[in-house]
Amino acid sequence: MNRWPVPEPEIPDGTHPALAAVARAAVGAFRDACARFSAPELAEKVGMGADGTATTRLDMLVDTAVAAAVDVCGVNLLSEEIGVIDNGSAVTLVVDPVDGTANAVAGVPLSSFAGVVAVDGKPVESLTTWLDTGRSWHARAGEPGPWRTSGRRELDGAAVSLLRPHARNEAAWLRVSRRAARVRILSSSCLEAALVAQGSTDAFADAGSDTHRIMDIAAAAVLVPAAGGAVMDAFGREVEIDPDLTRRWSGVVAATPELAADLAATIRGSEVG
Amino acid sequence: MNRWPVPEPEIPDGTHPALAAVARAAVGAFRDACARFSAPELAEKVGMGADGTATTRLDMLVDTAVAAAVDVCGVNLLSEEIGVIDNGSAVTLVVDPVDGTANAVAGVPLSSFAGVVAVDGKPVESLTTWLDTGRSWHARAGEPGPWRTSGRRELDGAAVSLLRPHARNEAAWLRVSRRAARVRILSSSCLEAALVAQGSTDAFADAGSDTHRIMDIAAAAVLVPAAGGAVMDAFGREVEIDPDLTRRWSGVVAATPELAADLAATIRGSEVG
Repeated sequence: MNRWPVPEPEIPDGTHPALAAVARAAVGAFRDACARFSAPELAEKVGMGADGTATTRLDMLVDTAVAAAVDVCGVNLLSEEIGVIDNGSAVTLVVDPVDGTANAVAGVPLSSFAGVVAVDGKPVESLTTWLDTGRSWHARAGEPGPWRTSGRRELDGAAVSLLRPHARNEAAWLRVSRRAARVRILSSSCLEAALVAQGSTDAFADAGSDTHRIMDIAAAAVLVPAAGGAVMDAFGREVEIDPDLTRRWSGVVAATPELAADLAATIRGSEVG
Repeated sequence: MNRWPVPEPEIPDGTHPALAAVARAAVGAFRDACARFSAPELAEKVGMGADGTATTRLDMLVDTAVAAAVDVCGVNLLSEEIGVIDNGSAVTLVVDPVDGTANAVAGVPLSSFAGVVAVDGKPVESLTTWLDTGRSWHARAGEPGPWRTSGRRELDGAAVSLLRPHARNEAAWLRVSRRAARVRILSSSCLEAALVAQGSTDAFADAGSDTHRIMDIAAAAVLVPAAGGAVMDAFGREVEIDPDLTRRWSGVVAATPELAADLAATIRGSEVG
């Protein structure tokens, strides 16, 4: 027995019906996949995703269930593995069916579903569901939600979540690490953004490795501002929904716009003082 | 609403009655503390622990409940904050009431209770309970348990959890990080050891910062060998129960003795090849 059961998601009332349906489909497929397959089977590369990275069996199973739910709802989909499904709707769901795939296949209980409702390309609503507990964070763009960030404005003394360092960004990673009071690497970007929204950590960033795809930060870009925080790219590129899945960002998710700017400048090596 | 409810712990049948009672007392006190106090109140330093580090209000409340349960059971206690309670028993519980205090006070849902039953100073049984979900890992020293490690023998390509880097061990931390395929920092040593036991990650280590106290690795030293893995100190010091709470270790918890040795050598900078 090396894996825990997957609970029902706690999807808040008022969530867009298509977003709720897709989230439930993702959780159901995740549960079935974890019950049927071993960790090596879940992790097996079974194809190539629309974003140009390998697709695991787990990704494939959950994405397939998401696509089926999208077709039933008659909305469009933009997803990491499948790419674009155009059902001729004004509504597009931008979905990361399993954020933190490496955690999920191994049984590290830190992976999430994250989805955004976009109307005519503009994000209006987000839902992040922690797959291992069912806990969910829902927000509407531009409306203060139930979550509040910590309000911290400076990196010195902050608690920061990061992606792991790579050779290409080790110096930037260390600049951030040396200034932060706490450093965590949970390996689930959407969950780490939700922890910023609820004030449990001050910030989350890709410290300049350009690993983030739009699905990794789209839900944060709705949820975190609704909690008083900010989301930006470390190099100033606009965080926007784009069907070109080869685009990458170094997402910075922070309790305040001031902390986001401080963190981004530190990542770029252009901080003042 | 910036905090999730604390569930009942899932304590396995056959757990030593005193260990089970203390775990339930810790979870109950954790739940009450989280319901009554804000994050800054939980984090407030209210005294100095027996281990020479500051005690938060959360630590104090949970440790007090643990001490009361220990007295009811008539066993002895060795705990971070309280130190030694000698009730004249042959049985001593070695307890970390809240492992991952910084996570716990902030609402990062990664903190755990960890306890070991020692008879005449020798560890015989361990229980680790993830406070935020109730999931528990129980083991008896020297008996194969229900959990199996990944079986990995080499650091290259391994998934490794680490404590955050400090100035004093940054070089060692980077030596490990550069060889590992995945790096995580969950900031709860006992939980990270449990993930090694269940095969979800290959290893967990303090990369030479000598941060670990005996409570941080005592449960791992029972649980992980019972799952096929190994626990050692990076510098070869014996991992032993000692009422001298000023002692520190750099714990290495790994899927196999070979991986533990590879990781320890890499931390020391004495790896071959």
